[in-house]
Amino acid sequence: MLNERVAYVNGEIVPESRATISIHDLGFVYGDAVYDTARTFGGRLFKLPEHIERLYQTLRYARIDPGLTPAQMTQKTEALVAANLPLLGEGEDYWVTQRISRGIARYEGDPVPYEGATVVIECVPLPLKGRAHYYRDGIPVATPAVRRIAPEALSPRAKTTNYLNMTLGDLEVKARDPKLWAVLLDHNGNLCEGIGANIFVVRDGVVMTPKEDHVLPGISRATVLELCRDLGLPAEERDLAPHDAYIADEAFLTSTSLCMCPVSSFNDVKLAPVPGPVTKRLIDAYAQLVGLDFVAQYSSRL
Amino acid sequence: MLNERVAYVNGEIVPESRATISIHDLGFVYGDAVYDTARTFGGRLFKLPEHIERLYQTLRYARIDPGLTPAQMTQKTEALVAANLPLLGEGEDYWVTQRISRGIARYEGDPVPYEGATVVIECVPLPLKGRAHYYRDGIPVATPAVRRIAPEALSPRAKTTNYLNMTLGDLEVKARDPKLWAVLLDHNGNLCEGIGANIFVVRDGVVMTPKEDHVLPGISRATVLELCRDLGLPAEERDLAPHDAYIADEAFLTSTSLCMCPVSSFNDVKLAPVPGPVTKRLIDAYAQLVGLDFVAQYSSRL
Amino acid sequence: MLNERVAYVNGEIVPESRATISIHDLGFVYGDAVYDTARTFGGRLFKLPEHIERLYQTLRYARIDPGLTPAQMTQKTEALVAANLPLLGEGEDYWVTQRISRGIARYEGDPVPYEGATVVIECVPLPLKGRAHYYRDGIPVATPAVRRIAPEALSPRAKTTNYLNMTLGDLEVKARDPKLWAVLLDHNGNLCEGIGANIFVVRDGVVMTPKEDHVLPGISRATVLELCRDLGLPAEERDLAPHDAYIADEAFLTSTSLCMCPVSSFNDVKLAPVPGPVTKRLIDAYAQLVGLDFVAQYSSRL
Amino acid sequence: MLNERVAYVNGEIVPESRATISIHDLGFVYGDAVYDTARTFGGRLFKLPEHIERLYQTLRYARIDPGLTPAQMTQKTEALVAANLPLLGEGEDYWVTQRISRGIARYEGDPVPYEGATVVIECVPLPLKGRAHYYRDGIPVATPAVRRIAPEALSPRAKTTNYLNMTLGDLEVKARDPKLWAVLLDHNGNLCEGIGANIFVVRDGVVMTPKEDHVLPGISRATVLELCRDLGLPAEERDLAPHDAYIADEAFLTSTSLCMCPVSSFNDVKLAPVPGPVTKRLIDAYAQLVGLDFVAQYSSRL
Amino acid sequence: MLNERVAYVNGEIVPESRATISIHDLGFVYGDAVYDTARTFGGRLFKLPEHIERLYQTLRYARIDPGLTPAQMTQKTEALVAANLPLLGEGEDYWVTQRISRGIARYEGDPVPYEGATVVIECVPLPLKGRAHYYRDGIPVATPAVRRIAPEALSPRAKTTNYLNMTLGDLEVKARDPKLWAVLLDHNGNLCEGIGANIFVVRDGVVMTPKEDHVLPGISRATVLELCRDLGLPAEERDLAPHDAYIADEAFLTSTSLCMCPVSSFNDVKLAPVPGPVTKRLIDAYAQLVGLDFVAQYSSRL
Amino acid sequence: MLNERVAYVNGEIVPESRATISIHDLGFVYGDAVYDTARTFGGRLFKLPEHIERLYQTLRYARIDPGLTPAQMTQKTEALVAANLPLLGEGEDYWVTQRISRGIARYEGDPVPYEGATVVIECVPLPLKGRAHYYRDGIPVATPAVRRIAPEALSPRAKTTNYLNMTLGDLEVKARDPKLWAVLLDHNGNLCEGIGANIFVVRDGVVMTPKEDHVLPGISRATVLELCRDLGLPAEERDLAPHDAYIADEAFLTSTSLCMCPVSSFNDVKLAPVPGPVTKRLIDAYAQLVGLDFVAQYSSRL
Repeated sequence: MLNERVAYVNGEIVPESRATISIHDLGFVYGDAVYDTARTFGGRLFKLPEHIERLYQTLRYARIDPGLTPAQMTQKTEALVAANLPLLGEGEDYWVTQRISRGIARYEGDPVPYEGATVVIECVPLPLKGRAHYYRDGIPVATPAVRRIAPEALSPRAKTTNYLNMTLGDLEVKARDPKLWAVLLDHNGNLCEGIGANIFVVRDGVVMTPKEDHVLPGISRATVLELCRDLGLPAEERDLAPHDAYIADEAFLTSTSLCMCPVSSFNDVKLAPVPGPVTKRLIDAYAQLVGLDFVAQYSSRL
Repeated sequence: MLNERVAYVNGEIVPESRATISIHDLGFVYGDAVYDTARTFGGRLFKLPEHIERLYQTLRYARIDPGLTPAQMTQKTEALVAANLPLLGEGEDYWVTQRISRGIARYEGDPVPYEGATVVIECVPLPLKGRAHYYRDGIPVATPAVRRIAPEALSPRAKTTNYLNMTLGDLEVKARDPKLWAVLLDHNGNLCEGIGANIFVVRDGVVMTPKEDHVLPGISRATVLELCRDLGLPAEERDLAPHDAYIADEAFLTSTSLCMCPVSSFNDVKLAPVPGPVTKRLIDAYAQLVGLDFVAQYSSRL
Repeated sequence: MLNERVAYVNGEIVPESRATISIHDLGFVYGDAVYDTARTFGGRLFKLPEHIERLYQTLRYARIDPGLTPAQMTQKTEALVAANLPLLGEGEDYWVTQRISRGIARYEGDPVPYEGATVVIECVPLPLKGRAHYYRDGIPVATPAVRRIAPEALSPRAKTTNYLNMTLGDLEVKARDPKLWAVLLDHNGNLCEGIGANIFVVRDGVVMTPKEDHVLPGISRATVLELCRDLGLPAEERDLAPHDAYIADEAFLTSTSLCMCPVSSFNDVKLAPVPGPVTKRLIDAYAQLVGLDFVAQYSSRL
Repeated sequence: MLNERVAYVNGEIVPESRATISIHDLGFVYGDAVYDTARTFGGRLFKLPEHIERLYQTLRYARIDPGLTPAQMTQKTEALVAANLPLLGEGEDYWVTQRISRGIARYEGDPVPYEGATVVIECVPLPLKGRAHYYRDGIPVATPAVRRIAPEALSPRAKTTNYLNMTLGDLEVKARDPKLWAVLLDHNGNLCEGIGANIFVVRDGVVMTPKEDHVLPGISRATVLELCRDLGLPAEERDLAPHDAYIADEAFLTSTSLCMCPVSSFNDVKLAPVPGPVTKRLIDAYAQLVGLDFVAQYSSRL
Repeated sequence: MLNERVAYVNGEIVPESRATISIHDLGFVYGDAVYDTARTFGGRLFKLPEHIERLYQTLRYARIDPGLTPAQMTQKTEALVAANLPLLGEGEDYWVTQRISRGIARYEGDPVPYEGATVVIECVPLPLKGRAHYYRDGIPVATPAVRRIAPEALSPRAKTTNYLNMTLGDLEVKARDPKLWAVLLDHNGNLCEGIGANIFVVRDGVVMTPKEDHVLPGISRATVLELCRDLGLPAEERDLAPHDAYIADEAFLTSTSLCMCPVSSFNDVKLAPVPGPVTKRLIDAYAQLVGLDFVAQYSSRL
Repeated sequence: MLNERVAYVNGEIVPESRATISIHDLGFVYGDAVYDTARTFGGRLFKLPEHIERLYQTLRYARIDPGLTPAQMTQKTEALVAANLPLLGEGEDYWVTQRISRGIARYEGDPVPYEGATVVIECVPLPLKGRAHYYRDGIPVATPAVRRIAPEALSPRAKTTNYLNMTLGDLEVKARDPKLWAVLLDHNGNLCEGIGANIFVVRDGVVMTPKEDHVLPGISRATVLELCRDLGLPAEERDLAPHDAYIADEAFLTSTSLCMCPVSSFNDVKLAPVPGPVTKRLIDAYAQLVGLDFVAQYSSRL
């Protein structure tokens, strides 16, 4: 019986401890890679088709041919999750990621190890324990001075592995307090996004989030916007300034792993106690949609 | 006797075919890595101290602790080159790269494979044959529409592996002609840089190149500026517009591997026959400095 | 009987070969002129009132008094078309242009030839043969590196003769392939416009085109938006990034002469075979509206 | 004997009243033209080689082949001046302009009137009388709200006929007072240039003017910078903000026709009485260099 | 009986002539203060709750604790108006302002005069006579060259006392004509706002005003948007370029004191006679809403 | 004998506790005021002429007439310092400030209290005790997300009281740690300035500070640049990115009160132990120039 998770690497299923890529892989050498990450709820993948569609959009943008059709990518992803399910602990869930690089850098005179892209699929456990406190206390959000890369240089709507810009933002705020969660401003100084997270603010009952012109169009973000429609909550995709966050009634982050998590403060200015009523209502609807009380899932690790 | 190149990976010397990193390495997962590349001339490393100094500046900027002092990094680099020298073909030379990621992504409940950064050092042969035509015909340079990332998001002076922005520029121009070499414009629309290459233009005897505010301060670029001083050629670091390239008398690119190579056209507008007299004079001085006629080295592969 | 087309020049009808303006005309000297261009379908002018309205908006913006009321301008335009109709070849149609400069530059001591603006109206044959291949193969679109003039310097909504910015974009892409059609990016790096052409992309059944804040509000563009309403196709005027073009299902250009023509590739990346289903549906509706199968009109010249 | 000035039009010398271009000339249709303007002092051309060199740089940038070598263009220009000299009034001088468009727009089925560019050379009298008051009172300078076109869209260093942006600036300030001279700000909000004029400010004895990155590198501007060197006056090419003008000790404009003329006020804020001592010293040196007291030449028309 | 207006200063009601603040007050020293201004109609405060809400948003943004709840601030404001009502002249009305600074600058060793914020509430008479001509002639609007502060530096939605940027714009246009009213452009060159005034343009029956992303969300502006809804007039909050003003059918300004006042010209280009029909209709509805014919109120002072 | 400091307010010398301005003063109402601050060393004013010159430049820029000549302003400043000298504690020194507003807001029907500007001159004790720890530990500098106002909106070279932009930056960093000193980035993302402080970085022996295009040209900053010249230290005024701070060998702040104080960390990344050797050398020279060991003066309060 399996006692180690397995990963998909270029057509083979291997134990993670032996799941490696060449030091010449372009994803490692030049960040020449893209990815997408879904998660499971109670072991079941959520909105995998949406994730696969976004992955293939990013591949088109990066002009990488993964060598697999979307249907094949879906099938292999599902198979990998199935293979790893027995190792999922009680009450745990998986992050499920496809990561695709342009392949191996070629050097003159060297043999060609294989043609085409490098495709990796992996399951890793969600950081339930490490983030549990955020569901109790809310997430303290801070805006670093470093700005998000402008779309004219690299589209924020493409999910690539070039995260150093956001990593620098995260390092800047975490250096002062490891609990802080960085939300970078875009090149115009509006609220943009953090590492893998979209931000929402609520004011006078209106739910607002930055336009996808400047942020990754998160699947969880889209889920919240759909829930707003279902619940009859007015929702807007619009430019949001720091001013909007300072005067917000409520705020929350969304991400594949977080789903939704309330924000407790913005640049060390406290918001109202969390979760606010609109956030609470959306969290409840989100949990119902995915069939799992993710707040309880996180909180049970406290 | 060695019949395969070896690489340094986290303290060990391994054959390249077995030189791998984990699929969880942050350099692969999030492009969370930096690097620097020197080259050999006749098997001897050139300006390694300058490369090592720039590498450690980038590490400071990225807040990555490589776990090695500059002296240790230098020693291990030199040792690796020595180990691979026997495999260097007649008239060939090596690219020598240190690549350092922040380490392995940690997942809850997983064992910790090792602490700290991932350090890779590798030697790969220079693409002498593939680029030989550039020394005969000059490099046709084109500016893609995609702009270089602005310094307020990511410093161009830090040599990180987040190259997708430049890769997109390269894909844009190579899709129309694989021989084209992309030189991106910066966020102000001035001449910036290409993948690993700085651009120079010459007009009325003045040698000009973009300021390091917007480009990687290439070691070869610095070498050319020093040679200008030695030769009494006026040289300026200044903002250069496409207009400067359209009306230039001469232009050339510099990079670690190219050293200096003349530019034949700019956006399909022919410049004067290459190499121009100033470029030729600098190439000769460069070859003398490094003790190897690199033009002949490349051209012999035609 | 007339064997040469005639033009209207400052109140007179003259054969085109003798239709001239002074070398001191401000339209020639300083580009101090505006224009608008309609076309005929089967010899009948289409949406002339809309073109005249836009022309007079541009005149107000440029503070040029044409010395004619909109009604007079309309009447003289219609009269000129009528005069030239006999010379229209079988299956051909006319571009019909009003071009108005601020008049003649005055120099000290010189006599004043006439007061006020220079008004030219002309009919020229549409380039049916030269563009026929675009209707068979689609238009390969490319984005040059040169950016469109920002609205804070010159309004893109005013149709002036200051086209050098767009001409530079066109020269940049045509130097590499004369079939390429340039679509410049705006100063934010979003899709903007080409010489006399608006761009549309289609994704998931939604028809999208840049907002008129950054482009000329083309009459054909407006026609397509009206057709979308009539056909129940969702349509949006919004900022569009190159990313939108790379992942588009379909794309097309609109212009007075083209009406609508499918786009085959974007920066040398192929889109799906042309015309796509939404484009086809709009083309059919467009042809019905104007009472002429313009695709057949162009294609018959192949 | 000649009683009307003549002009050069495409190889022929014609009286100005019959010097015309086709209404299909691309310079008139699309502003697809470039030019340069020198002036005479006492009937003698000043710095014609510098003007011709700049003209050919602009032609390269615009990719227009004039069909004449620089030497031919020079010869034809000098010949035209010689032909018109007899008509030059007592104490008058000429503006001498080469204007070159890309040629005639081609329409399908139309005969081709001629190949290649349209070349016009003309002499017109300087506006001595109209501007005389500026030498007595100084020039009141105002900055319109409209900004100069950014270099990433159109190089300010290329002297093209696309002047509408500057014309709009001029209209904006002249609508409130016809004596005002517009100096536009660049896209960063720094002092840029007016129609055919560079601005200089003087503070604490230092003569400063905007860098040629953002302005036309005027021949008169260069002349002033050379005179500064000759006179030992410190001079700087640098970004200048409106703040620099508000606190300036002196300011002046330079242009081919003005040579140098003091500025009396900036946005209706008076500067010190004109001309200031540094301006006066430079004017005297300028007059000596060109061999004509241009201030007296203008002032005699009062 | 009271023969001088009184003001509220830090909890006390004092005659205005003795209503002072320390020279060390941070509002005076560093502009470290915010405010809001309502007005009376026939002595009755209009939309005070909306003004108080905006004031408290600005206080949150500036992180100033006024030491009073919104209810207390409201009560004290109403009490002050009541106290000053007897001094209101026939047909006059009051501007009613709360101005709150962060308090007193503290210097080492100095005694602390009081803790916390400085709160001032004051009533001053509206400038009915001084502005009466605007209701007869319309307001001539001009755009200065100085740009509005970008939101990334200071939110335009926060009503702070840092008005120097707008004051500079006002000085720039008033220096040429004291009747001109400055409307600054934003950092993108779009129509923004003037001192305490929002701008609206009307074209083809559509009422348009800049988005609140770039301007103070005026209470009068909101009132007009509500009236548009009530009257069935289409209204849009969108980016507006100077082009929109040049081609507008009508334009008007709104402010607390003006309510609505027609614009007669834009940069000295006349608009149609004022008030236009849409403006007139909105003015009438506005007057009805507030229960006072403010046009008559102003005009009676002519 | 005097037991309270006095201030100059509009021509009168009054005890500070009674030194007040009207609540209608434009400096309080609209931040319509400018200022300058010198300091004493051992009771003697340092570089007062330079401060007065900058004050009058700012007054010109703001178009405020103070009603006093520079000589009068100087004399009144010196007199005020003399009057307050007896109250200066052992080893203490004064900040000496002129603050000038445009005067009193005028309201219709109100009497005019006085004409012209409000002029305040004051002496306050330097915060020696509160800042002493910075000289022992160095100053921890942090860059807030809020950007400095761009020069096109308000010149950073004018010393006005509109400090809210910098106050917001300071609040942002002090909310997380009251010891942090904010240095804002400019609108391009380069290092700019903090409240009343310029930043310098030192690398490879070169002393660098941002150009005065983007910062207040501090008198202490100029003093350091002069000392560099005197000591033969290479010094550059240039754009500096955060990258420059992250890789700096040393850094320090300058201000009138601080003179020079070493920086210990940048965004929580430690620099080398403070003061570095170049900083130390400059501090010693600075102390010698002003005739007072200001480090000892501060440190004695620990």
